[in-house]
Amino acid sequence: MIEGFSVDLGGTKTAAARIANGRIEARLQSPTEAQADFEAQLDALSAFLAELGFRKGDRLGVAVAGRVDAAGRWGAVNAGTLPGIRGEPLLDRLRGRFGARVSAINDAAAAALAEARLGAGVGADHFAYLTVSTGVGGGIVLDGKLLQSRNGMAGHVGFISTFLGRDRCGSGRVGTVESVASGRTIAAMAGTPDARAAFASDTDRSHAAIDRSAAAVAGLCADLTAIFGLDRIAMGGSIGLAGGYLARVTARLSDEPPLFRVPVVSATLGHDSALLGALLSERAAS
Amino acid sequence: MIEGFSVDLGGTKTAAARIANGRIEARLQSPTEAQADFEAQLDALSAFLAELGFRKGDRLGVAVAGRVDAAGRWGAVNAGTLPGIRGEPLLDRLRGRFGARVSAINDAAAAALAEARLGAGVGADHFAYLTVSTGVGGGIVLDGKLLQSRNGMAGHVGFISTFLGRDRCGSGRVGTVESVASGRTIAAMAGTPDARAAFASDTDRSHAAIDRSAAAVAGLCADLTAIFGLDRIAMGGSIGLAGGYLARVTARLSDEPPLFRVPVVSATLGHDSALLGALLSERAAS
Repeated sequence: MIEGFSVDLGGTKTAAARIANGRIEARLQSPTEAQADFEAQLDALSAFLAELGFRKGDRLGVAVAGRVDAAGRWGAVNAGTLPGIRGEPLLDRLRGRFGARVSAINDAAAAALAEARLGAGVGADHFAYLTVSTGVGGGIVLDGKLLQSRNGMAGHVGFISTFLGRDRCGSGRVGTVESVASGRTIAAMAGTPDARAAFASDTDRSHAAIDRSAAAVAGLCADLTAIFGLDRIAMGGSIGLAGGYLARVTARLSDEPPLFRVPVVSATLGHDSALLGALLSERAAS
Repeated sequence: MIEGFSVDLGGTKTAAARIANGRIEARLQSPTEAQADFEAQLDALSAFLAELGFRKGDRLGVAVAGRVDAAGRWGAVNAGTLPGIRGEPLLDRLRGRFGARVSAINDAAAAALAEARLGAGVGADHFAYLTVSTGVGGGIVLDGKLLQSRNGMAGHVGFISTFLGRDRCGSGRVGTVESVASGRTIAAMAGTPDARAAFASDTDRSHAAIDRSAAAVAGLCADLTAIFGLDRIAMGGSIGLAGGYLARVTARLSDEPPLFRVPVVSATLGHDSALLGALLSERAAS
């Protein structure tokens, strides 16, 4: 049963929670100061944790946007998301402030673990979680175990190629799924202030932008099925869960040959998945 | 130490070997009857094994082009490779003929296991083997363990998307790495009878075809690095090992952002890797 405190520091919002008996008892949230440096991010976490009643030595799971390596260092993959974060000694500094029972993990990987064990992935042997939001992220859980690598890159599936891709995304790569499917791209292509506005507007440009995103994500689902032999994919994120999006993805996926199709369902833990999953991580927790 | 008999039944050639103390003592090879049905393929294996001195009950590892699921059924992924093979009960029939100590595995997966444990992958934690030949295949070995799935799809990395892709390949998918990088495509684009002739000819068309193949394979290397956090990739196959090909791949890969680069080296076990790896498979061997 999950017990303790957890933090989800994403590109757009930071949330923290006190969790007992597997349930969130208290939850705080605020916009992330995306330009802030590492010290300022740590101060923001401290303030949240104090308000939730955290005491040094309590169990704490921290999920962050970006890459966390086996030594607990934190860096960006998409340089546009948290430009102030560049290979910071996250785990060491968290332990100095908050005690030894701290773990750190990528936010989408945390969400994948939570969905696999408590949500939409229960019963699947080879499971992937995708989040389509400002960017595109994910996590892979094989026979109950999260796919992780020493350099913290494993699971960054939004940065692989799509045959629809032409442009460069924030990772520096050309032709990635993120460059086609992200909320940033949807808004730019739809000519709306943000992706939410694209979903709300009923223009040809908006439909085309959302369709193209869904096509790239369907291709990613088929790619991951070829690579992992997946049983199931769960879709999360503000765009992944937006009305009609999943149906567009599954329609596109039904055009793939049978061996490349996979059931794609909505994630069920909503915005709490990374908060729950941060406490399920095996890595670097003591 | 590897001991026993093994068979490598590929799309273009079938080889069999007697192996003792980890070394190939005797080896037979002939062109694969690509149009043959399942019974005819089994008969061909039997003839080879008899010639090598196999007796029912000896250890036998069989590697085949295509997909072998957890129940030992054998089917094509690229329908053009072995059109006579459509979900055959491979392991059951092999055991009926050759005894209980038989295992069956995809050929590229077998080669990946062999390279990981005995060849170019020794010392790498997260390792991929790619074979670029008539088609494009591969295998992933994570912390010494081959990535496998119940449906036998895992590791079919030649069938994922590339931003260079436009055409349909034999898997039925559009825009795959195989559709751009395979020997079939190189020959078609170069206007030569086969890929070997494209490498031998010094025309602009041949160079363009080989370069485009290498670019798609470099993109695949970067994709797999993003997904698995790879330490190393080994390149095999008649095209992967052809003069200058690996250098073209690594040149393209050096254009990727640092996080997506990975050392790519030549496979070292040559044409014997699948024969050796067939006896290293954990699946379905008794």
